[in-house]
Amino acid sequence: MTSWPVLGGKRTGNNLTTSKCFRCIPYVVYCLINSIFPVCVAPVGLSDKVLVFPYETDFSFVALIPQKEMGLRAFTLCMRVATELPEERQIILFAYRTADYDELNVWREQDGRISFYMSGDGTFFHLPPLTTFRTSLCLTWESRTGLTAFWVEGKRSTYQVYKPGHSIRPKGTVLLGQDPDKHLGGLEAVQSFVGEITDLNMWDFVLSRSMIQAWHYGHKVPKGNIFDWGNMEYELNGNVMVVDDD
Amino acid sequence: MTSWPVLGGKRTGNNLTTSKCFRCIPYVVYCLINSIFPVCVAPVGLSDKVLVFPYETDFSFVALIPQKEMGLRAFTLCMRVATELPEERQIILFAYRTADYDELNVWREQDGRISFYMSGDGTFFHLPPLTTFRTSLCLTWESRTGLTAFWVEGKRSTYQVYKPGHSIRPKGTVLLGQDPDKHLGGLEAVQSFVGEITDLNMWDFVLSRSMIQAWHYGHKVPKGNIFDWGNMEYELNGNVMVVDDD
Amino acid sequence: MTSWPVLGGKRTGNNLTTSKCFRCIPYVVYCLINSIFPVCVAPVGLSDKVLVFPYETDFSFVALIPQKEMGLRAFTLCMRVATELPEERQIILFAYRTADYDELNVWREQDGRISFYMSGDGTFFHLPPLTTFRTSLCLTWESRTGLTAFWVEGKRSTYQVYKPGHSIRPKGTVLLGQDPDKHLGGLEAVQSFVGEITDLNMWDFVLSRSMIQAWHYGHKVPKGNIFDWGNMEYELNGNVMVVDDD
Repeated sequence: MTSWPVLGGKRTGNNLTTSKCFRCIPYVVYCLINSIFPVCVAPVGLSDKVLVFPYETDFSFVALIPQKEMGLRAFTLCMRVATELPEERQIILFAYRTADYDELNVWREQDGRISFYMSGDGTFFHLPPLTTFRTSLCLTWESRTGLTAFWVEGKRSTYQVYKPGHSIRPKGTVLLGQDPDKHLGGLEAVQSFVGEITDLNMWDFVLSRSMIQAWHYGHKVPKGNIFDWGNMEYELNGNVMVVDDD
Repeated sequence: MTSWPVLGGKRTGNNLTTSKCFRCIPYVVYCLINSIFPVCVAPVGLSDKVLVFPYETDFSFVALIPQKEMGLRAFTLCMRVATELPEERQIILFAYRTADYDELNVWREQDGRISFYMSGDGTFFHLPPLTTFRTSLCLTWESRTGLTAFWVEGKRSTYQVYKPGHSIRPKGTVLLGQDPDKHLGGLEAVQSFVGEITDLNMWDFVLSRSMIQAWHYGHKVPKGNIFDWGNMEYELNGNVMVVDDD
Repeated sequence: MTSWPVLGGKRTGNNLTTSKCFRCIPYVVYCLINSIFPVCVAPVGLSDKVLVFPYETDFSFVALIPQKEMGLRAFTLCMRVATELPEERQIILFAYRTADYDELNVWREQDGRISFYMSGDGTFFHLPPLTTFRTSLCLTWESRTGLTAFWVEGKRSTYQVYKPGHSIRPKGTVLLGQDPDKHLGGLEAVQSFVGEITDLNMWDFVLSRSMIQAWHYGHKVPKGNIFDWGNMEYELNGNVMVVDDD
């Protein structure tokens, strides 16, 4: 198993003051210090790689750079996720935020439900619990009807009607591992993700059942046009490891 | 994903006063206002369609028009059903009522059991819980012996002996989504169905194990001679959506 | 669905006073009144039949007549069993009693464990719960080593060592549905079996794992030399139905 660099960020007060990149060979990783977060830009592409978030922190996350702007009236978001965090612990699974809004957040709630929020009140689903074993999880939403569903191991939940007519705003930031309470800031350890995420893909339309099942079984499907794991551009921060999917 | 019209009914006091059919193209749906319920008569046939009941209401239901009178001394009723309603919530799954009697009701009880009532006291089964994923559920009953069983994913429950010699009366009304406490009236939100129902079929005889398993797996079986999902005649009322089964 | 006769027995005080056999066509069933139990002797053989015990009673049972005397120093007992009785309810699953001893009893205990008793203290196993769906259950015991195991759906429990050197006495009576506290008497409703039993077989030796798995999957195995479901000689009493396995 080849491991990728663990990137350390140390937080003092409200500001991240230190950033370390080490063990960057054989990959070239370079770090940028900007006013809010120090980031390490990794090469493009995560085929056969897993993001491992080994500890509970308020500074470890991965920012994902979309292939196109995320002004969306429909989407499919898929990922494989595993965690050993206890059932009663809130967990951020995906966060897309613009300056003023949580545009598209996926959580595991304290009561075990999986939730989906766009700019305000969310909608909640009773799904099988996330476990130490990888769960294949997709989320589909379409503005016209509001029809929303999670897909677990290729099986669709019951539809819920959530925010028909809504649009997701562009020009925000996607984070894995942390929930920013303001744009690029306000992270909390007790909401952080601990565990593994891999094979995250996102499309700006609703995939059919057969496509979602094909993705679940690892068969060939149309590449995500927002995020494509195999061509993912991303920035690592804090204690996140990129390891071979073994 | 093609969705079918959401049909809105507005209730004032005890009377439904408004009914809206909209976005009915490319399907012709027309509405009838009668003294009790405003209904929208949809074209025949629900092949590859799912009925979605997105909210808890006391006015959303689907009336099913049988192909033959429901004076019955045996039957098989099958459907695929998904719900996220909490375990302790009573849910009506199927209601056939004549003027004075609940002729054939199927419930999920507050204690999680699935129950079957004909004109009075019911019989109760411990089955696996209904979930957000679709459960294939059949019910068989035969008057001569009273032998009654539910079939979950093609597997039969233990037989119970229930009302041997009984006959179900004809000339009533079948509703999905609500339990009418009187003929075409007396609906209660706290008993309403929220979730999805599809592929409902009914026969006036007891199907064999192999036929029920064939139906479960989506193989070809004799068409229901009381209800055949592919040729279903039905009336939508309130917030019920007919969506592609995807 | 062809059903077999419902046989009614009415108990007054400590004596069964009435026995009715009805609807016995097309099978010839005849009734014997003896001083203790009125019994209806059915023709031999239960291939593709299920015994249904629909109600909790203290008078419904099936006596099984063994093909050879049950003086045993090893055995394999297999059956398929389904019940909806609540977890905390004691249930007799098999009772073989001689004049002074419970020679071979199998119970579900009030704590959910499955137990096995020979002439005194029993041994207890944590197995998956019995449900409304059929469980395939075998029990093996050998006097020489005392090695005892239950087999659920063809999978063996951990071995326990129970009464090595013991012998089961011959010339008793095997009952399904009731536990006789004395030879042919002393029945209690709260211990009775409610549910279904089918495909009961018994051998006077320990079957191999592959034989038990073959039996579980319904493949051909050596016929039971104590009980063979397809050639079973039995006596029905009370409300027990013999129905087609469908």
